Amino acid sequence: MSGILFVIGTGPGNPEQMTPEAHSAVSASTDFFGYGPYLDRLQLGAHQNRHPSDNREEMRRAGDALTMAAGGRKVCIVSGGDPGVFAMAAAVCEAIDTGPAQWRSIELVVVPGITAMLAVAARVGAPLGHDFCAISLSDNLKSWDIIEKRLTLAAKAGFVIALYNPVSKARPWQLGKAFELLRAHLPRQTPVIFGRAAGRPDERIIIQPLGDAHASVADMATCIIIGSPETRIISGGGRPELVYTPRSMAGGNK
Amino acid sequence: MSGILFVIGTGPGNPEQMTPEAHSAVSASTDFFGYGPYLDRLQLGAHQNRHPSDNREEMRRAGDALTMAAGGRKVCIVSGGDPGVFAMAAAVCEAIDTGPAQWRSIELVVVPGITAMLAVAARVGAPLGHDFCAISLSDNLKSWDIIEKRLTLAAKAGFVIALYNPVSKARPWQLGKAFELLRAHLPRQTPVIFGRAAGRPDERIIIQPLGDAHASVADMATCIIIGSPETRIISGGGRPELVYTPRSMAGGNK
Repeated sequence: MSGILFVIGTGPGNPEQMTPEAHSAVSASTDFFGYGPYLDRLQLGAHQNRHPSDNREEMRRAGDALTMAAGGRKVCIVSGGDPGVFAMAAAVCEAIDTGPAQWRSIELVVVPGITAMLAVAARVGAPLGHDFCAISLSDNLKSWDIIEKRLTLAAKAGFVIALYNPVSKARPWQLGKAFELLRAHLPRQTPVIFGRAAGRPDERIIIQPLGDAHASVADMATCIIIGSPETRIISGGGRPELVYTPRSMAGGNK
Repeated sequence: MSGILFVIGTGPGNPEQMTPEAHSAVSASTDFFGYGPYLDRLQLGAHQNRHPSDNREEMRRAGDALTMAAGGRKVCIVSGGDPGVFAMAAAVCEAIDTGPAQWRSIELVVVPGITAMLAVAARVGAPLGHDFCAISLSDNLKSWDIIEKRLTLAAKAGFVIALYNPVSKARPWQLGKAFELLRAHLPRQTPVIFGRAAGRPDERIIIQPLGDAHASVADMATCIIIGSPETRIISGGGRPELVYTPRSMAGGNK
């Protein structure tokens, strides 16, 4: 008997941004693994079991969930945002790749969700309206040299840059260093959007020009979007500023 | 009197992937603008008016919708996927930026959705599990030189690459040229995922190695994900192949 493993994303935390597909996976599951605050977003029944873990224990969590699914249970791993973007889906695949052969026969269902950069972008207009990239600023799982190289090439390419995992207690200086590096390649007035808890009651969205962007504005739950040289700000009309990156660049056919 | 303009994303077409927030925006609106097939995804009431348009008329559609919202109506522009990723939110911002001053006072509400690359990624595992970029392959709105430069820099950066708008009747050769270019920078066995109608009954997902990837597999509704040199394939267990990009790279602190 083999069970099933769902890997779902709740979106950034606004219940209105969690899809019906994710709700269906929750209803179909008996055992829930994930970072405690993400499990707290679900309304579980008495027959449904919570297995919370710390947010740095991804591989152990993936292994525990796979072991339980291999035993025939209906298991759900819960990520915030989208499970495929710097989250649990890759950890589960890695565990399957390196784990016991029988894990390969478990039915795996990944359910997409609204990832943070999309929710933050929506709150300010359309900063991701043209080519963009997403980079995790954590040097726990890759070297800082690689991060610097990617930031530099992304700026040279003209990508809008979304930064995930910008800061933590153990990584206090990386974001400031990233801003410093990008100032060498991008105009000082390039908009930087700090988005936290987008769409939730405690939402905080702050826009600063790159030249004056302060890393201290961000915490570990902040997603940061750094514009390209094309990104523009619209103000006036008694409304909050809008930030957008135009669809077109000089040199197109139309 | 000023109305309101919602800009929503339906997700890739599976009704289970459209958020409650997007449904609420539909319920609150009286007039709907968008590409006809996207409007067809909504179940509208008798008091709700459809204003379909061709998918190449974004700026006119944005202007028409803003004009109606400025007149006090509750208007909804409908995108597939996420409205902020190569879709209508940027066109609306551009129209506000360059249009009559009173458009700046319209209440604009952008509602995020599941963008194609997240839905395609979920169906095959976690190919976007590490740093990635999204590039529109259309040279209607930017020059082909810029696209080639961005593809090259993205490959050098080690990003997984998601391609939107890979091909159309007027753009038949661009995708083949992009594969040719990337073969100079990436291993021939790099997985290429062609994802069409992810999560819908007519879903088609095809995985080919970059060395043998055929542009003819794609049409205008296909989202393509090209792995990085780190991206791996898992097979066996009687299940479809899984594709994932590990969270870690050599040289991290853990």
